[in-house]
Amino acid sequence: MTKQKATHITWHASHVERADRENLLAQRGATVWLTGLSGSGKSTIAVAAERALIERGRLAYVLDGDNIRHGLNKNLGFSPEDRTENIRRIGEVAKLFTDAGVIVFSSFISPYRADRDNVRVLMGPGDFIEVYVDAPVETCESRDVKGLYKKARAGEIPEFTGISAPYEAPERPEIVLDTQRQSVEESVEQVVRYLEDKGYLNTPTGD
Amino acid sequence: MTKQKATHITWHASHVERADRENLLAQRGATVWLTGLSGSGKSTIAVAAERALIERGRLAYVLDGDNIRHGLNKNLGFSPEDRTENIRRIGEVAKLFTDAGVIVFSSFISPYRADRDNVRVLMGPGDFIEVYVDAPVETCESRDVKGLYKKARAGEIPEFTGISAPYEAPERPEIVLDTQRQSVEESVEQVVRYLEDKGYLNTPTGD
Repeated sequence: MTKQKATHITWHASHVERADRENLLAQRGATVWLTGLSGSGKSTIAVAAERALIERGRLAYVLDGDNIRHGLNKNLGFSPEDRTENIRRIGEVAKLFTDAGVIVFSSFISPYRADRDNVRVLMGPGDFIEVYVDAPVETCESRDVKGLYKKARAGEIPEFTGISAPYEAPERPEIVLDTQRQSVEESVEQVVRYLEDKGYLNTPTGD
Repeated sequence: MTKQKATHITWHASHVERADRENLLAQRGATVWLTGLSGSGKSTIAVAAERALIERGRLAYVLDGDNIRHGLNKNLGFSPEDRTENIRRIGEVAKLFTDAGVIVFSSFISPYRADRDNVRVLMGPGDFIEVYVDAPVETCESRDVKGLYKKARAGEIPEFTGISAPYEAPERPEIVLDTQRQSVEESVEQVVRYLEDKGYLNTPTGD
């Protein structure tokens, strides 16, 4: 019987722990949650920070609209309930990646404080790093990289965050990036320095 | 202006590709999808294979009922639609992990051929490795590790796969594990050898 045999082996009984993966990767898994208005710079910073970490030999991965809205959450719209479910699922996926030892950059407007706090509660202490990508709506609108503000002003996009729907800024984010005053490089450096200073980029050492 | 500055830097423009992560990890991302009856040995094999890979310095991660049903899919039940959505979401998450360069072991009964085929279609060639964990229902029932067959026979669990709900075996799985005849060690060896032979445990070369 397979089952009986299995009880004789030692390597089978021992589950892989998160710490085993973190030791392998020489880093600590974490979710770096970027929140801010459309055009504030979230995705640019997430992608650049991912590259900075990979170049240091650390495993990072970006969750953003491109790989989530067309995949896992393609059956969700933009109603309040769907927005909440959108963030809930992203939070659960980020938690899995964190458990896998990966440093995840999550890049979504995520306008509601309660939704973000729910993700924080889901995760262990130190696993959730909230990054407020801060820029005045006027600045974001003047950038208007995707032309969304123009459409929102024309009434083509209802409930557009910052224009016709609320954005609730974080109250105690781990990091604030003032993208009106600082460059992308400076923002990325700030994030990477935080991760370095807090020990995320080294093999975790006990607790 | 941040945006203008950003256009001057070269590292920003260059997105991290999947190949960058795979080179870092010296492995190829993949989803090893274990399917089979309750009690066939899926989870035991998944966990043991994960350990075998970690011990070789390769990054692996198990998706199973423990980390999915209580998290991402906790708002799903067991109706046919919910079962399909359950597998769809798991497939999308497995795709993200595969893109991140991780070797994922997915351990779910996943009884419907169409649901599994949908996951296969979602992924690139070679990214989806279907593993049929094959054991007669009588064998699974005699093991009854979780006491579920007993409950199903007592009518306490309606629509129990193999008893009162169908299980559709894969038609062309990449791997078949006959867990009635072979030990857990032998099954794990078979999976790891497949990954090795097909080049998943080395830095990918070319395209």
